[in-house]
Amino acid sequence: MKEEISVGLIGFGTVGSGTFRILRDNAELIQSRLGVPVKVRKIAVRHIGRRREIQVPAAVLTDKAEEVVNDPEIDVVVELIGGDEPAKGLILGAIARGKHIVTANKGLLAAHGSEIVSAARRKGVAVGFEASVGGGIPVIKVLKEALAANRILSVYGILNGTSNYILTKMTDEGRSFDDVLVEAQRAGYAEADPTFDVGGIDTAHKLAILVNLAFGLTIEPNAIFTEGITVISPLDIDFGKQFGYRLKLLAIAKQHNGRVEVRVHPTMIPNESPIAKVGGAYNAVQIVGDACGDIMLYGKGAGSMPTGSAVVADIMDISRAILNPGMQPLLAAPSGNLTSQEMDEVASLYYLRFMVVDQPGVLSQISGVLGKNNISIESVIQRGRALGGVVPLVIMTHEAVEKDMRRALAEIRGLSCVLEQPVLIRVE
Amino acid sequence: MKEEISVGLIGFGTVGSGTFRILRDNAELIQSRLGVPVKVRKIAVRHIGRRREIQVPAAVLTDKAEEVVNDPEIDVVVELIGGDEPAKGLILGAIARGKHIVTANKGLLAAHGSEIVSAARRKGVAVGFEASVGGGIPVIKVLKEALAANRILSVYGILNGTSNYILTKMTDEGRSFDDVLVEAQRAGYAEADPTFDVGGIDTAHKLAILVNLAFGLTIEPNAIFTEGITVISPLDIDFGKQFGYRLKLLAIAKQHNGRVEVRVHPTMIPNESPIAKVGGAYNAVQIVGDACGDIMLYGKGAGSMPTGSAVVADIMDISRAILNPGMQPLLAAPSGNLTSQEMDEVASLYYLRFMVVDQPGVLSQISGVLGKNNISIESVIQRGRALGGVVPLVIMTHEAVEKDMRRALAEIRGLSCVLEQPVLIRVE
Repeated sequence: MKEEISVGLIGFGTVGSGTFRILRDNAELIQSRLGVPVKVRKIAVRHIGRRREIQVPAAVLTDKAEEVVNDPEIDVVVELIGGDEPAKGLILGAIARGKHIVTANKGLLAAHGSEIVSAARRKGVAVGFEASVGGGIPVIKVLKEALAANRILSVYGILNGTSNYILTKMTDEGRSFDDVLVEAQRAGYAEADPTFDVGGIDTAHKLAILVNLAFGLTIEPNAIFTEGITVISPLDIDFGKQFGYRLKLLAIAKQHNGRVEVRVHPTMIPNESPIAKVGGAYNAVQIVGDACGDIMLYGKGAGSMPTGSAVVADIMDISRAILNPGMQPLLAAPSGNLTSQEMDEVASLYYLRFMVVDQPGVLSQISGVLGKNNISIESVIQRGRALGGVVPLVIMTHEAVEKDMRRALAEIRGLSCVLEQPVLIRVE
Repeated sequence: MKEEISVGLIGFGTVGSGTFRILRDNAELIQSRLGVPVKVRKIAVRHIGRRREIQVPAAVLTDKAEEVVNDPEIDVVVELIGGDEPAKGLILGAIARGKHIVTANKGLLAAHGSEIVSAARRKGVAVGFEASVGGGIPVIKVLKEALAANRILSVYGILNGTSNYILTKMTDEGRSFDDVLVEAQRAGYAEADPTFDVGGIDTAHKLAILVNLAFGLTIEPNAIFTEGITVISPLDIDFGKQFGYRLKLLAIAKQHNGRVEVRVHPTMIPNESPIAKVGGAYNAVQIVGDACGDIMLYGKGAGSMPTGSAVVADIMDISRAILNPGMQPLLAAPSGNLTSQEMDEVASLYYLRFMVVDQPGVLSQISGVLGKNNISIESVIQRGRALGGVVPLVIMTHEAVEKDMRRALAEIRGLSCVLEQPVLIRVE
């Protein structure tokens, strides 16, 4: 019987320091739950000499990540540097040496997850990645284990705290995207280059991981239909409110008849939906299974301690398996022969806003084009009356198919009464 | 390597039939996830000949529960008859024969959980009880595994669907408890004898289980301070709304300085709280950990398929452990030397309603008694003006201690201007 579990960290930023703090401050509790202590044996950092808020024994620090990978005493390598290389090489190297892996690297998993998991399977080691999606929310474990008896029908979620923070501020304070972004950057809630978050790319990476677990479907993040929130105007948030909707950046995956729709875009959702209330930097995931019905998980989607909590939970799961020889599988098997649905074929409700010349016959022209393309109208708002001026014409449609909508919009764009690029937001 | 996992069910009511359906309908998916099939080998029922909605091969049915316990081929015994005996004897008998246990029997676990778990530990078998709390919501797994790195600070929840259904109807439609109860009984949402649900007893059983996992504290359900919803008046729900609160039957466990408050009672919670929005037959649990922060789990708290989903998840977890020799511990170790807090010492905000004679000086008398007992007033509503008549006087207090409140109320009851039993509802 092993007398302790030995961990090596690669990377000591936000998540790394949270992980270290938890392993240090809750050491007694963790030992009482596992039966043996978990010790941090090495931490690979970029600059050994740098001043840190956390006290770490000098002997633990190294600036050579390979020392962590090669240390024969280390049982679990925790990769927290992010990005493609050198992270991938270090992880594969550690697997080759029989080490278990914990990682929060969603980009790497989304792009090379299958390769990493196959290598781990061959070697009989585990790959834990709870920290890659939803911070402290245990969505990976819930999908993989708690809902294992279910055929998953859909996974919905708010998976990017930065975008949700910005949209929440825009909604509550009626401010513009650019305005709130600058404030979020000053407050440290958004990066200097926010594209990864507000462009929906981070959300798509996380969704690719969830889709793999939920549906056994491997999808390249680049192949996921992705729209960010940069073009969202407070005007549309406001019209949405009038219809009883709130705007959220949603990750959506739904199964119908063996096809899975996978998409990331700003979405209007009904006020009564539990996810509509998820504000600020919180994340939430709603999962519908054929047996369990709908389940929602809600919590802090990022941050040093919540994400560290997920990393340490993985370390503890792996430790239990090390202490009790024989591993439990850590990735779901495919749930059948599912393929991904083309975006063209996806059906949705749509919110449309046209800036039009305020003259008789405009609504008739536009609704004519929609009708011809199989799109029927649920309700219309025409705001202001300034004959000859420019007014917004807002239309909420019944369910329509994406390719019909694209064809209709192309035609509507050509109408002389339509003055700006139409705005389209999907409604769930 | 075993070629299949063999399961025996004892009890074939709501949860048993859901479990059977899932194992049958999702057999292929479950096999693909585990590597081997899970087969139901025996089902013990009360009346073999009874007509059933589900087709079950006659050879599988027996009216002798001992046949399930004694069958050498059965790996996992699923106890779904509820109650104390014979359930307890059957479970202990199955453990003695080296079988793993899955049970949804919250009453039995709350009263005899330690004895059952100790017997299982000695024999090296697992006891799965995800289905005992929260139906399809994986609160047991989340507390035990996903949040294993956290010192749990509090667990809050709506754990009884019947009470929540009744309170939701009373709130939305302004109807009385008795009125809604009769309707709920007709619709099958409440039992003919609803005491167990609306009296808070079911909630207390579930809370005892969660407290054991979260805090390593064994508490008898009878020792939990428990108030039900039978005395709730629509008047108080309505006054609560005016203060921005919603009324819910909450299970509450909070840790402060090594003491754990454990209580079940109707509670006013702020409208903005995520739990305030949980309506109808849904359950929700909010958990605060020192690392993960606050997490909420939400879903269907009862029903054949959601609870069956939890039962089959436990069967699959146990199957993985059977297939990979070596067991993982299935109960949390204590998180320190915690003791439970006396209700007398619990501090809370309070909503108070007095039916008083409408005459000058009444507020001053009542507030005088409160003040003398260290209770300060946050706000007051005096509704109606009918000099000499009877009017409600509603007071929201700042934080006060239970024993001070009891002393003050005893004194206020004695005032001649107070005409009815005062109403006290705690606020979180």
